[in-house]
Amino acid sequence: MPRDIVLLTDFGLADPYVGQLKGALLRHAPQARILDLCHQVEPFNILQAAFFLGVSRQWFPEGSVFVSVVDPGVGGDRRIILVEKHQQYFLAPDNGLVSFVMQRGGASRVRDVTPAWRRDASATFHGRDVFAPLAARLANDAPTADLGDEVNPHSLARLPGAEPVRNGEVIEATILHVDRFGNCITNLDVASWTPVLFKSKTPSLVVPSVRELFPVVTYEKLAPGELGLIRGSQGYLELAANQQSAAAILGLSSGAVVAISLDKRD
Amino acid sequence: MPRDIVLLTDFGLADPYVGQLKGALLRHAPQARILDLCHQVEPFNILQAAFFLGVSRQWFPEGSVFVSVVDPGVGGDRRIILVEKHQQYFLAPDNGLVSFVMQRGGASRVRDVTPAWRRDASATFHGRDVFAPLAARLANDAPTADLGDEVNPHSLARLPGAEPVRNGEVIEATILHVDRFGNCITNLDVASWTPVLFKSKTPSLVVPSVRELFPVVTYEKLAPGELGLIRGSQGYLELAANQQSAAAILGLSSGAVVAISLDKRD
Amino acid sequence: MPRDIVLLTDFGLADPYVGQLKGALLRHAPQARILDLCHQVEPFNILQAAFFLGVSRQWFPEGSVFVSVVDPGVGGDRRIILVEKHQQYFLAPDNGLVSFVMQRGGASRVRDVTPAWRRDASATFHGRDVFAPLAARLANDAPTADLGDEVNPHSLARLPGAEPVRNGEVIEATILHVDRFGNCITNLDVASWTPVLFKSKTPSLVVPSVRELFPVVTYEKLAPGELGLIRGSQGYLELAANQQSAAAILGLSSGAVVAISLDKRD
Repeated sequence: MPRDIVLLTDFGLADPYVGQLKGALLRHAPQARILDLCHQVEPFNILQAAFFLGVSRQWFPEGSVFVSVVDPGVGGDRRIILVEKHQQYFLAPDNGLVSFVMQRGGASRVRDVTPAWRRDASATFHGRDVFAPLAARLANDAPTADLGDEVNPHSLARLPGAEPVRNGEVIEATILHVDRFGNCITNLDVASWTPVLFKSKTPSLVVPSVRELFPVVTYEKLAPGELGLIRGSQGYLELAANQQSAAAILGLSSGAVVAISLDKRD
Repeated sequence: MPRDIVLLTDFGLADPYVGQLKGALLRHAPQARILDLCHQVEPFNILQAAFFLGVSRQWFPEGSVFVSVVDPGVGGDRRIILVEKHQQYFLAPDNGLVSFVMQRGGASRVRDVTPAWRRDASATFHGRDVFAPLAARLANDAPTADLGDEVNPHSLARLPGAEPVRNGEVIEATILHVDRFGNCITNLDVASWTPVLFKSKTPSLVVPSVRELFPVVTYEKLAPGELGLIRGSQGYLELAANQQSAAAILGLSSGAVVAISLDKRD
Repeated sequence: MPRDIVLLTDFGLADPYVGQLKGALLRHAPQARILDLCHQVEPFNILQAAFFLGVSRQWFPEGSVFVSVVDPGVGGDRRIILVEKHQQYFLAPDNGLVSFVMQRGGASRVRDVTPAWRRDASATFHGRDVFAPLAARLANDAPTADLGDEVNPHSLARLPGAEPVRNGEVIEATILHVDRFGNCITNLDVASWTPVLFKSKTPSLVVPSVRELFPVVTYEKLAPGELGLIRGSQGYLELAANQQSAAAILGLSSGAVVAISLDKRD
């Protein structure tokens, strides 16, 4: 059975780049099935892409090959790495893109697959000229050991913003992504932070003035314009408003840091 | 032969949601072929989505499973329904999304397929967590009777704006959609309204000042800037201009109501 | 083995048009595999589309059927043509869309495949109603001779802007495309123009004030804000800046003409 190749890039859809990437994949792996995770990652926003990859991979079939190309260092010295984890494969530049994939669960194997012939390839379009042939080899069931040597997972580039910082009663959270509906997805994962935040009767958000947050289960529980803290579908707490854009209300965008102050009485 | 699953959502393409929906579908129905009808329905614009579905379904193969998720009531009490019509399947929240599909032709069967286990699913992402497993069962040829009981088609939610209103010589039409080229697609279907409007020598549009409309067959027949009424490719009359945006000229967007005044002398 | 059908249009992704085109293709050629090259060509920008097609086709498998629909003359008299070249097939309106495909390499065959029944089809949506059935016949391996008679390749419509103009030490180049990252892709192909421009120590750009251009190999070699001339991944010289938009710095968009002045001392 041919593998699925899942694409995540910041190429957008108004250029011919995604099309050329797909063509190159099918030239090398004619039987593969290509799926789009997302191509509209903000240009060079590695944190956003790392989040997308980390929260999406579980929904795709086992054996899937994820090709993630958000790569401000293209043409420079950064490695290309292959992570084997969760019975799936992750190809990416070594710039933090696999941070959320590595955060949780199970054993992993990391390889440096930077090809020896890299310098012959186009200096600027590694997605098509370097990642596609590598992904096609995986899709064609090449043994991963043929692609490169194992390296220590601790050698992977680290990504600021992937984890929140807690100082006593104040939590500094980073907005990983603002979605189409204006929901602001924080880096507070539901499992760890729900007990902390939903226990506090009135946690408040400081951005920059203080606003109360209402911990709720569904958007419908909020009055129009009211700001809620919701256990989002991505496994992270989200700042949300009912049929309004929380991002517009608060003036937030991806990468912003917000302070959440816990109720001291709890 | 595996079925086609056709997706229509307001998720946009800048979030990971469409990708996760597709992954979930293929986890449950690995042999299905997934097609995108459109993911850029305006957020919560049910009328626009209902129109897209109604005018597009006929172009897809028999047996196709349409999954339509524009769902402001997600997490609330609205039912999930399955319509069997035209030898195709339509899964949607019961909020009017199937209005145009139901409007015309042939027998239909409607089922309430709201799953009993709905409350266990994510409160906010029913597309991935509720619709995908249902669609996958259809794609895997599960008998539709297994998914839910039949209900009376008249119990379906109704959608304002799906039909025009006529008062004597004045027709109140709703703009269903403004397309990329600025054409304003009205809810006046070609078959019913062409005889009325093309018979009138100079129907005029009142938005708010009065403008003449020239009934034409192709855009090329219009002088630059001239406003025409055209029998559009979607089966509805459109306000159009030659290589210009009629929407920009008239200041119209999806959901707007316009009055068209017939020539009394005809 | 079923053929790949590769789509290039200016339909955008916010309308149901691409979906209907795909549905119609699969109705007629159920085994075909459909790939998107790009659907966000600027409305009616034939030059941009011709460039996308010319630089992308080589990445797709042999036997691919390219369906290109950017068609301001839809409903008028323009022919529909089929080009056979590079063991691939190109269906397009005869308006210059195949200019870059025709520019280089190898033998080609051109046919007029304007269908006799064209007048019965929708006057406005030839993509779905005319091109899809033609492409499906190709995908189903119909002999190309059945689709239409050969015509002289010199009878094809010509496209202004596809080639630069040189007057002594001044080259007038056209911007074919501005990509998501703000790189301005010129119509100066790398093979012909690199020797000319990279030999000149300090070629300068006149847009309208004079700016120095630094011929470089990778974006990383540029200081922030510095303007470079780079051998782009598309095979053309690009105006680029490191992690900044050259288009924003220079105020350029697709179709703009820029003058590049060579260093006289070289």
